[in-house]
Amino acid sequence: MNITLQQAEKAIAAAQKKAIAIDTKMNIAIVDAGANLVAFARMDGAWLGSLDISIKKAKTARFFDMNTGVVGELSQPGGSLYNIEHSNNGLITFPGGIPIKNSKDEIIGAIGVSGSAVENDHAVAEAGAASI
Amino acid sequence: MNITLQQAEKAIAAAQKKAIAIDTKMNIAIVDAGANLVAFARMDGAWLGSLDISIKKAKTARFFDMNTGVVGELSQPGGSLYNIEHSNNGLITFPGGIPIKNSKDEIIGAIGVSGSAVENDHAVAEAGAASI
Amino acid sequence: MNITLQQAEKAIAAAQKKAIAIDTKMNIAIVDAGANLVAFARMDGAWLGSLDISIKKAKTARFFDMNTGVVGELSQPGGSLYNIEHSNNGLITFPGGIPIKNSKDEIIGAIGVSGSAVENDHAVAEAGAASI
Amino acid sequence: MNITLQQAEKAIAAAQKKAIAIDTKMNIAIVDAGANLVAFARMDGAWLGSLDISIKKAKTARFFDMNTGVVGELSQPGGSLYNIEHSNNGLITFPGGIPIKNSKDEIIGAIGVSGSAVENDHAVAEAGAASI
Repeated sequence: MNITLQQAEKAIAAAQKKAIAIDTKMNIAIVDAGANLVAFARMDGAWLGSLDISIKKAKTARFFDMNTGVVGELSQPGGSLYNIEHSNNGLITFPGGIPIKNSKDEIIGAIGVSGSAVENDHAVAEAGAASI
Repeated sequence: MNITLQQAEKAIAAAQKKAIAIDTKMNIAIVDAGANLVAFARMDGAWLGSLDISIKKAKTARFFDMNTGVVGELSQPGGSLYNIEHSNNGLITFPGGIPIKNSKDEIIGAIGVSGSAVENDHAVAEAGAASI
Repeated sequence: MNITLQQAEKAIAAAQKKAIAIDTKMNIAIVDAGANLVAFARMDGAWLGSLDISIKKAKTARFFDMNTGVVGELSQPGGSLYNIEHSNNGLITFPGGIPIKNSKDEIIGAIGVSGSAVENDHAVAEAGAASI
Repeated sequence: MNITLQQAEKAIAAAQKKAIAIDTKMNIAIVDAGANLVAFARMDGAWLGSLDISIKKAKTARFFDMNTGVVGELSQPGGSLYNIEHSNNGLITFPGGIPIKNSKDEIIGAIGVSGSAVENDHAVAEAGAASI
């Protein structure tokens, strides 16, 4: 019930392929069920600041077993989870983090992508998650 | 004037009972009058990211001797305590943290609960606090 | 292959019983296979500074799947792992942390105990780990 | 003068091959000339605590443009760099971190490996660095 390195590398390859297809340069991180990093790749020329963001997105998606953007909708000013980002040494709550499930629909890890507009980040993360 | 481990374990048991009754999986933390952890329990399958949040809620409730949600009302944009969450290595200021009082109405610690909607978190924390 | 809360609470109860038997006051922490806290108890009057140490001992034991004291033997000045304690936000490498195994000899978590001489810490951790 | 993702992935593949050949499970990290992570892989079953150590070894090797073990010789008690590990959010100064050079002998990044005895960590790092 934990993602393997082989699966993680497959997800990174799929995400990279999508990133190239939409002409972006991404940081791509995969964490396991315990929210610990399994694999990571930073494409040449990708934003340096997105390195940490991609890892935090992956962790956030596994911490709460949902897409990071969903957490962000609830953490706005006045929202029920306002400023939840201060927990867990820093969350990232905009789109680009997605839980990864196995064929039995069990969550085995998560992917986090950062390096472009959040819609692109999400699309690349989705391509990675869908490859498992 | 300080919560005992026996009282903390009683509060966790009461909180767990309530969590099961409303079909949720919670992280439950109890801190003492010095805001230091006394007891903790993470129910099987509860969100990993709620571990840190439950402890921060308990600390926040004792740091200011009020329910965490009350702090959150004052920390909104434009509010008098805007971004107070940056202090104390990170506060959590939405509902789920409640001070614990003894029979003389003295604060002897606090409980923090996280793992579901904030209304559920608060209800479970209340069940724990009320058991003392 | 992950410790349950019920198992963790059983280990804490066994550790507490041993701590009382040898007249000590302990902080007792249990982490799961992902090195995340599952349960914790601080006995009344136990050293405050041992709170963090017990958690770090449990994490260290799971991080390297060995007793913490074994890591400490290798991390002395001139040793092959000198100053490894600077990793992972701080390790504790003296005795008191022990991996917890299931009946198939698989590591499912770890226990960390702190509050007395390290021989006592280790003995109490052993009592906890042996109860699973 | 900076390592590419393609080169980093080649180094990880070479390191993994060596790790398998000597029957070990490794965490392998590659940083660029700016000491920022480019690629990472944690082999299935590798120690969790070695995740952070492998990254810190890679950073340490690039921070000072030398093998981590060389720094460790100077950081012993009484040595000229005693306790240098306290800098840069934590260094790791035992073997397993090696600078990576291009064909012009320019340092373009570094590799850090952790998961076994330090001699093995160094051998695997060397295999990775030599592949560039």
